[in-house]
Amino acid sequence: MAPTYTMAGGKGPNSYSQHSTYQRALIEVAKEKISEAISTKLEINSASNRFNIADFGCSTGPNTFLAVQNIIDAVGQKYRKETQKNPDDNIEFQVLFNDHSNNDFNTLFQTLPPTKGYFVAGVPGSFFGRVLPRDSLHVGHCSYSLHWLSQIPKGIADPNSPAWNKDIHCTGFSEEVAEAYLDQFKIDMGSFLKARGEELVSGGLLFLLGSCVPDGVKMSETMKGMLLDHLGNCLNDVAKEGLINQEELDSFNFPIYPAHVAEFKSVIEDNGCFTIEAFEKISHANEEFPLGPEFLATSNKVTFGGVIESRFGKEALERTNELYEKKCPEILPELANAKSGMQFFIMLRRN
Amino acid sequence: MAPTYTMAGGKGPNSYSQHSTYQRALIEVAKEKISEAISTKLEINSASNRFNIADFGCSTGPNTFLAVQNIIDAVGQKYRKETQKNPDDNIEFQVLFNDHSNNDFNTLFQTLPPTKGYFVAGVPGSFFGRVLPRDSLHVGHCSYSLHWLSQIPKGIADPNSPAWNKDIHCTGFSEEVAEAYLDQFKIDMGSFLKARGEELVSGGLLFLLGSCVPDGVKMSETMKGMLLDHLGNCLNDVAKEGLINQEELDSFNFPIYPAHVAEFKSVIEDNGCFTIEAFEKISHANEEFPLGPEFLATSNKVTFGGVIESRFGKEALERTNELYEKKCPEILPELANAKSGMQFFIMLRRN
Repeated sequence: MAPTYTMAGGKGPNSYSQHSTYQRALIEVAKEKISEAISTKLEINSASNRFNIADFGCSTGPNTFLAVQNIIDAVGQKYRKETQKNPDDNIEFQVLFNDHSNNDFNTLFQTLPPTKGYFVAGVPGSFFGRVLPRDSLHVGHCSYSLHWLSQIPKGIADPNSPAWNKDIHCTGFSEEVAEAYLDQFKIDMGSFLKARGEELVSGGLLFLLGSCVPDGVKMSETMKGMLLDHLGNCLNDVAKEGLINQEELDSFNFPIYPAHVAEFKSVIEDNGCFTIEAFEKISHANEEFPLGPEFLATSNKVTFGGVIESRFGKEALERTNELYEKKCPEILPELANAKSGMQFFIMLRRN
Repeated sequence: MAPTYTMAGGKGPNSYSQHSTYQRALIEVAKEKISEAISTKLEINSASNRFNIADFGCSTGPNTFLAVQNIIDAVGQKYRKETQKNPDDNIEFQVLFNDHSNNDFNTLFQTLPPTKGYFVAGVPGSFFGRVLPRDSLHVGHCSYSLHWLSQIPKGIADPNSPAWNKDIHCTGFSEEVAEAYLDQFKIDMGSFLKARGEELVSGGLLFLLGSCVPDGVKMSETMKGMLLDHLGNCLNDVAKEGLINQEELDSFNFPIYPAHVAEFKSVIEDNGCFTIEAFEKISHANEEFPLGPEFLATSNKVTFGGVIESRFGKEALERTNELYEKKCPEILPELANAKSGMQFFIMLRRN
């Protein structure tokens, strides 16, 4: 069974394609770092005319188009500099857009940039397993996707387990819950790296972007954790109103875990296939100031709406969204005092 | 602009995925021929562990899954025989499913065989142009797609042109119309072969299946031509009832042209990149006996409904379908006396 936590499809006002400027901002900031990394760390095989780029967890666009174009431009520049030849006449780029098989690929394909200079392929399937042939990939990219786990961690939905989690995510305040989430993260991130290690050619680069948590900080001390707690409170309100079964809600968890820096590094080192060329905090244009209730509510809806609706139904989702936006102003002062989260830029080179 | 003549999407009773058994029958009959061809004509490069197969004009499934599995099985058998090694452990198959960007790839991806032994990629774009990198393809397949032209031939929709065609397809009875259709076919088939010639590796095979017309026979003398004439008559009835503008209908043409055998061969020879290893008439289980009105009506709907609806609207399409089925019994005796059409099996080897 394919999971239900793909982003909202289509092109309408409540679609991910129309509401992913927050995620886009990070790609824009990372552009220069990626260009520089490709310029200094990538070995171009001038004997081969083929160059394959994959975006893992591409969703429906348009962010993925921006991300891959940045990579193509950087590779082209490097090729031109090293060979004095025009990359447009000599390299054929193929871009592999990967996401779950229930991602809205139709929207992705129908909104491709009209003047793209690359061959397109949509690759359906979980990136926790192999989705591409061995040694077929030169540069991989993955943005804001690795905080999604492949499944709900063991025990956290079971009222009889010490890891039972009545919150809807890993707040960081229960050791047992945190351990269960971390165990699942290690399995999933390990699977991701194992698969990419087989797909990437030797010397190939893997760029990972997204949210993690600085060591020593708890998720619920950060803005994003607070927003999830806010969502949890709204869901509890809806349960009190009777639209959601309270017991079901008490065992409901999002399969997301923004790991701590040290946890992330440790999984990469355990995998052993990659050299960490960069693991940096990267600044995000929208990170440090509280955003408006409407923006936050829509962002919440397109990102988490699918999971909530599939579990509790459409009516409960709509009421939750309503409360989320209405009560948002109450938490803005708290958000302003949140500890800094962290947007990461990781560059790995395949050994 | 992507054209509108993709097959009906989705998985419902009026979808192509549920109503393509006619097309499926040809793939089943071709299975043995393809196996034999791969066994005798394909050179397996045992040094490479990668094998790429593309289906051009794949639609939404399930026929495409059957077609590519037949090819994979045949390649596996040959590999096992030649190397004494297990292909499952040694070859990684990647299947590239190609169709227009407005094809329903979501349905294709969500109905993939659960135990498929290959990597999947959906490749959006017109097969009259390049859709894959150079020298990246080992076996290509294209079934019941090459009778679709890329556009309406010049002049046939223009009342002031000598090639103006009041029929809805190339019946074969007007020389000027036939010439205009043939000119467009030559351009399109030429583009198709040029693109595949660049994508296929040297020695790679291209299997083409579909409908053509024996030399000396006119389209409207065959069953399929008669069915199109029947559709034209129904559209004219609907125009008389007022749901379709008669002038518009008089300039309406389907962009389809099942070529004559000699025309097909001549375009392949002009291209020059391929050796014709086989160009055969292949028997089709459903070809020789008249089919029921309901089957024919649904088949007509899923194949041509999209074009009719986009041109004349939903109401006109529904009324046309109604008349098509109702009046079908009238033409069954005529169908029984139709001249034989021809289902072709072509195998080309890249020089």
